[in-house]
Amino acid sequence: MKCILLLILVCSAANAQNRARVLAEFNEFLKLPNVAADPEGLKENAAWIRAAFERRGVQTQLLEVPGAPAAVYGQLGVQNATGTVLFYAHYDGQPVNPAQWKGSGPFEPSYRGGNPADPETRIYARSASDDKGVIIAMLAALDALRAGRGAPTVNIKFLFEGEEEAGSASLSRILQKYTPLVMADFWIICDGPVHQTRQQQVYFGARGVTGFQLKVYGPRRELHSGHYGNWAPNPAMMLARLLASMKDDEGRVTIPGFYADIDPLTETELAAMKAEPPIDETLMRELWIARTENAPRRLMEVLNQPSFNIRGIDSGAVGEASRNVVPSEAAASVDVRLVKGNEPKAMLEKVKAHIRDQGYFLVEGREPTEIERLQWPKVAAFYSTEGGYRAVRTSMDLPQSRAVIAALEGMGKPLVKMPSLGGSVPLAIIEDVLHVPLIGVPIANHDNNQHSHNENLRLQNLWDGIETMRALFQLPPY
Amino acid sequence: MKCILLLILVCSAANAQNRARVLAEFNEFLKLPNVAADPEGLKENAAWIRAAFERRGVQTQLLEVPGAPAAVYGQLGVQNATGTVLFYAHYDGQPVNPAQWKGSGPFEPSYRGGNPADPETRIYARSASDDKGVIIAMLAALDALRAGRGAPTVNIKFLFEGEEEAGSASLSRILQKYTPLVMADFWIICDGPVHQTRQQQVYFGARGVTGFQLKVYGPRRELHSGHYGNWAPNPAMMLARLLASMKDDEGRVTIPGFYADIDPLTETELAAMKAEPPIDETLMRELWIARTENAPRRLMEVLNQPSFNIRGIDSGAVGEASRNVVPSEAAASVDVRLVKGNEPKAMLEKVKAHIRDQGYFLVEGREPTEIERLQWPKVAAFYSTEGGYRAVRTSMDLPQSRAVIAALEGMGKPLVKMPSLGGSVPLAIIEDVLHVPLIGVPIANHDNNQHSHNENLRLQNLWDGIETMRALFQLPPY
Repeated sequence: MKCILLLILVCSAANAQNRARVLAEFNEFLKLPNVAADPEGLKENAAWIRAAFERRGVQTQLLEVPGAPAAVYGQLGVQNATGTVLFYAHYDGQPVNPAQWKGSGPFEPSYRGGNPADPETRIYARSASDDKGVIIAMLAALDALRAGRGAPTVNIKFLFEGEEEAGSASLSRILQKYTPLVMADFWIICDGPVHQTRQQQVYFGARGVTGFQLKVYGPRRELHSGHYGNWAPNPAMMLARLLASMKDDEGRVTIPGFYADIDPLTETELAAMKAEPPIDETLMRELWIARTENAPRRLMEVLNQPSFNIRGIDSGAVGEASRNVVPSEAAASVDVRLVKGNEPKAMLEKVKAHIRDQGYFLVEGREPTEIERLQWPKVAAFYSTEGGYRAVRTSMDLPQSRAVIAALEGMGKPLVKMPSLGGSVPLAIIEDVLHVPLIGVPIANHDNNQHSHNENLRLQNLWDGIETMRALFQLPPY
Repeated sequence: MKCILLLILVCSAANAQNRARVLAEFNEFLKLPNVAADPEGLKENAAWIRAAFERRGVQTQLLEVPGAPAAVYGQLGVQNATGTVLFYAHYDGQPVNPAQWKGSGPFEPSYRGGNPADPETRIYARSASDDKGVIIAMLAALDALRAGRGAPTVNIKFLFEGEEEAGSASLSRILQKYTPLVMADFWIICDGPVHQTRQQQVYFGARGVTGFQLKVYGPRRELHSGHYGNWAPNPAMMLARLLASMKDDEGRVTIPGFYADIDPLTETELAAMKAEPPIDETLMRELWIARTENAPRRLMEVLNQPSFNIRGIDSGAVGEASRNVVPSEAAASVDVRLVKGNEPKAMLEKVKAHIRDQGYFLVEGREPTEIERLQWPKVAAFYSTEGGYRAVRTSMDLPQSRAVIAALEGMGKPLVKMPSLGGSVPLAIIEDVLHVPLIGVPIANHDNNQHSHNENLRLQNLWDGIETMRALFQLPPY
């Protein structure tokens, strides 16, 4: 009895020491700015990742194509491997507005009053959850194996992309150039959050995405609203009317053909969806909302439809900065999520056709000219800022899919199986080049403020994530 | 012949010297920041005005009430005066965003490549036209009289307000406290622009104004648009739909009762409107617009209706700063212009009733609580940021009105007579306390970017304005 207690205490002390080491390394990684606007920062992140994996015996190299941040590649061969699996994550983060971050900046990782010994504490920083956390989990899982928890059962490859948040514009070129390196029996995509119930989740697809910027035009220059208001066209009102024409009060998109071209879900996928633990009401309370769009459809159902989301609108000024003017122009930014069957370009064509149907003369990728503005009553400019990519769904009945499910269920906790994630991962880009199955295993908490300010990772998700990565490195035969 | 030429040359040299002196003084005045957020700056402006008028023999004093910038008062008595006239202008300016000013900042007056000897050159600075320009014109007109152009025919009073751009919230208290000083046979309001044809203009009223800030709410925090988009309500779309419900595609306000309570124009006023030189088509070309709101009504007709103008909208981010999120809230800023018959409060009540009719639970002057957001499907907050004031119209047939028209027509140029200015001047506040006729004589060019960045005054307007002020100081008997 005494011996066992002593063993537990010793293990616990060793464990605390391990965790402190993991957090120290995480902290160092999070301090490196990783936004697209800072190419030098991205280079430092890539160099940091290479060094960290090399220290664990992983051979690394940069995968480079002109005009893009390099991807970091790594490989770890094992004896008697039953196959080869590639683990994907990205090391770049969404743009940041430091003014919106409370207490500590986006690249000043902090616990914000929490105690790192408490697993409910979170670490705050850009990319804490999306995706630096899982990269740290992989490193710690490699350490655990090297410290005596057994050997990997498969050859492990790693690929860390540096351009995911900018739409993975160069990933295809990278995969084409380095196909032999990145080829594997299948890929495990370690991006996205776990289920909102905090249960481990595996997903077999992800929505695609595209997006655009839209501008409408009023008078050439701002005008005094008293001398010209309600005579000179107000672009903020024009934009409001145009956007309002795109969705009804229930949240249903009213752009003609928006819900066409959708591949139906299979019986297996519908069954998996049905087995998902209920979360809508809990989420609504947590988010202070008393209704949802597209009700009575549940969140999971809505995520299996294409979506039309206004990311931002801007015209003139509000609050203290308000001035009594008719603004000169108004802008909106929109992202469109795609499900299997939707093509990014075709979806944007539907949006453009709808804008023209509202009486707009539409120019693309440029400002309208004086002549155009004088000729057409309503003028809009459409900027396809992101190429975007299709949705992908992998069959849940493949041997690789079953092996991943077995490894995760082998950890002894409930597992949520999602036919598709609501968020987008550039799976189509990978599928188009490599034609390998793609399966998603995320580790981040759902309430991580991903893509926004105050992004964070719950520490228990990191500790669980290390175990998850270890289980996947020791995948059963498939 | 030679003698006349010499005389012209001498006069012209003297004139150039005079103008250089006027511009030097103007330059000094424009350098003083005069925004509401900078009370010390406003004090410096007031002190500058006092000193400038005292140098011309005008007795001045500050009119002070607690919690407001002081107004500057001045008086100049004359022998055998036929009456007493007060000249009103304001010395405060609209808020500034220096980043939007091209070439030189809002308080760095510049000609931007123009030549001050060319009357088409403009001087750029906050308040160049609104209203520091006319204050300089008054000073130069006093100099002209003192230099031998004759004596004033009326006792002259001056009142320069320091809070007009903030809604003249304290003007009423100032007038009540100092009634004997500010009482006159009538007031001449030297605010606003001349006619778009560049012809001198006299106006006999001005619209009133009120305004509000509106916020609508989505999820408590920004959410990843892939994982929650089109399920969590998007506040930018909610705001777009709400604003779109307030105006139709022709620019007609659709808020119930918005066009009720309008006092009709008299025959004289309708005749003056009809005599206005046509300007709509020229303006449309200048402003690059191919249609107007409320067509086929002309600008002058539209300005004699109440207006509903979106000053700004804001939610999430657009352009480079776009992030794939469902924003948490969306805001709009609106100004409402009032015509004779409209009451500010009653107009806002109509707006609020309309918002409620769209299914919103509306809180006023505060953020909604968690409980309210959980209870009501659609929640909005309404902030009445400005009290506002009524419109005023003075009869064009009063002896004072006729005297002003005679003085201006005596200058030998065409005169445009407007029943009401589209812009707002706090005439109701003055009328309520003093019950004196109010007549507007502006000097600024219409295309002055008033209330916006790159505000400017065309120099010829300044030179004409000096003559206009001189003519009014020498008003015929009434």
